[in-house]
Amino acid sequence: MPAASGEFDIIRDFFAGAKKNSEGVVLGIGDDCALLRPPAEGMLATSVDTLVADRHFPAGADPVAVAARALRVNLSDLAAMNARPLWFTLALTLPHSDVDWLRAFSRGLLETAARYGISLVGGDTTRGPLSITIQVTGISECPLRRDGASAGDAVYVSGSLGAAAAALPVILGQQPAAESTRREAEHLFYFPEPQLSLSESIGGLASSALDISDGLLADLGHICAASGVSADIDMQALPVAPLAQQLAGEGAAALAAGGGDDYQLCFTVPPENIPQLELLGLDVTRIGRIVEGAGEVRAWRDGERWIPQACGYQHF
Amino acid sequence: MPAASGEFDIIRDFFAGAKKNSEGVVLGIGDDCALLRPPAEGMLATSVDTLVADRHFPAGADPVAVAARALRVNLSDLAAMNARPLWFTLALTLPHSDVDWLRAFSRGLLETAARYGISLVGGDTTRGPLSITIQVTGISECPLRRDGASAGDAVYVSGSLGAAAAALPVILGQQPAAESTRREAEHLFYFPEPQLSLSESIGGLASSALDISDGLLADLGHICAASGVSADIDMQALPVAPLAQQLAGEGAAALAAGGGDDYQLCFTVPPENIPQLELLGLDVTRIGRIVEGAGEVRAWRDGERWIPQACGYQHF
Repeated sequence: MPAASGEFDIIRDFFAGAKKNSEGVVLGIGDDCALLRPPAEGMLATSVDTLVADRHFPAGADPVAVAARALRVNLSDLAAMNARPLWFTLALTLPHSDVDWLRAFSRGLLETAARYGISLVGGDTTRGPLSITIQVTGISECPLRRDGASAGDAVYVSGSLGAAAAALPVILGQQPAAESTRREAEHLFYFPEPQLSLSESIGGLASSALDISDGLLADLGHICAASGVSADIDMQALPVAPLAQQLAGEGAAALAAGGGDDYQLCFTVPPENIPQLELLGLDVTRIGRIVEGAGEVRAWRDGERWIPQACGYQHF
Repeated sequence: MPAASGEFDIIRDFFAGAKKNSEGVVLGIGDDCALLRPPAEGMLATSVDTLVADRHFPAGADPVAVAARALRVNLSDLAAMNARPLWFTLALTLPHSDVDWLRAFSRGLLETAARYGISLVGGDTTRGPLSITIQVTGISECPLRRDGASAGDAVYVSGSLGAAAAALPVILGQQPAAESTRREAEHLFYFPEPQLSLSESIGGLASSALDISDGLLADLGHICAASGVSADIDMQALPVAPLAQQLAGEGAAALAAGGGDDYQLCFTVPPENIPQLELLGLDVTRIGRIVEGAGEVRAWRDGERWIPQACGYQHF
């Protein structure tokens, strides 16, 4: 597409700081295509996500934070597949060329890239309503798919759940909170931690995995649908995040079950691998089991079915 | 990112027709990442482009045509690198879920994909102002870069130039034209032909190449800047498109030199490869030569410098 001097200046001025001698990058930003030589072993894993201003983040948000979130949520998809980050591209649509915004955004992006060892290799800048599309590519020798769960497998989640969903009304100014809480909420939302290291640890032990972006029950439903199984979840076993308890009180368990944006991993482990997993001492919690069925996820509390009021995030 | 049932339905309903057993596609649409096994020989070439509604195409345009253009202009970037198409992803932002629009768009996209042997392997759908981001990946054993031109090389272009720029005012209703001319203009704009076959033919002979999206002189300037050379172009040698002559009269040569969107290739050939290139009988025209210099492109007519009034397409 049209790629004239204005666009070239933006890429050169703000994003050319991207490392050029990174692994496998033969030719980075500045030609019709990037040229890449992937590692000989393993499969490429690739994922693309768009963040639209005032839908996925406030248009006036700190560009450093927006850039961090945009790349981190994509890296979370690599973690979900047990893929090591290699390269990414950026398609940036901006209403106008705002030097201060671009300087901060590119700094946030390149700092995040350096932190996770992923190289910016290409992109496109266009004028229009603010949105950010990032595509990440990684390499995996032992990919974790959604379709590998079997009846009898245990269901695990990493970390704790519900904090990001509890944080959202604070970030949006809909719920009052102390300054320190507001900062914690913003940090949780804009700087989710892609579970790359955890994913590597469970790669050879789990039968399926994904990252929790839409909410635990909705996302586990994707594993069940892809694997042709159902799941029973013990609500009392859920690792509810302290911030969710602090902000949502009795509603915290529902946020842990149904709230999105935590970017923790949900994964299944065959019985024979459970002892080895438990020996690793990872920050993971067993919350239920996979059973025969047709893609249903059932949550239980005190021996009774627990029905979520709202489940997951709906785009359309 | 959030990927709940609404988004899943759109991808399943409209894009799941994408071939699943394509070359190297281990896992396509529906997981956190696509899993891909590239050919063992060659380098990956990847490029991303965004089309924003009412900037790169009219929002009310035929979705089949919009899809075709979105994919074809990306394939042109693969042609410019002499890369064979493998896979692509689609990040689609839509103001609302319009079934008729989606049905037509997905048909146009998958038909175009089938025509050029490229597989849709993943994507993201979000709600927001209409825009389309496509990232293509191909494989090249003999990539054509922008930085390989040397003083003494001949400059060539493929096909003819200026038709797309001449067609634009007709498409936008700013210039009256016969119905058949209007149709030809629309076809040129929405269905540019990526020069994949030509690129393969010149791969071992050319020293540099790119596709002409911004206009010949502007794009040749990118080759000169990347290669650290200058170029002299003979305006009387330019292959001016018949449609440009028909619509723009005496202004046709200026459109051929400065108008964008033709997606022909501009490439340089070292003197020792010229005889072999000419023997191939390709639809290419020699238009000038590379000289020592600092990135300047000079156009000449009747022995005098020809100065373009407007040159190339400016995003910002």
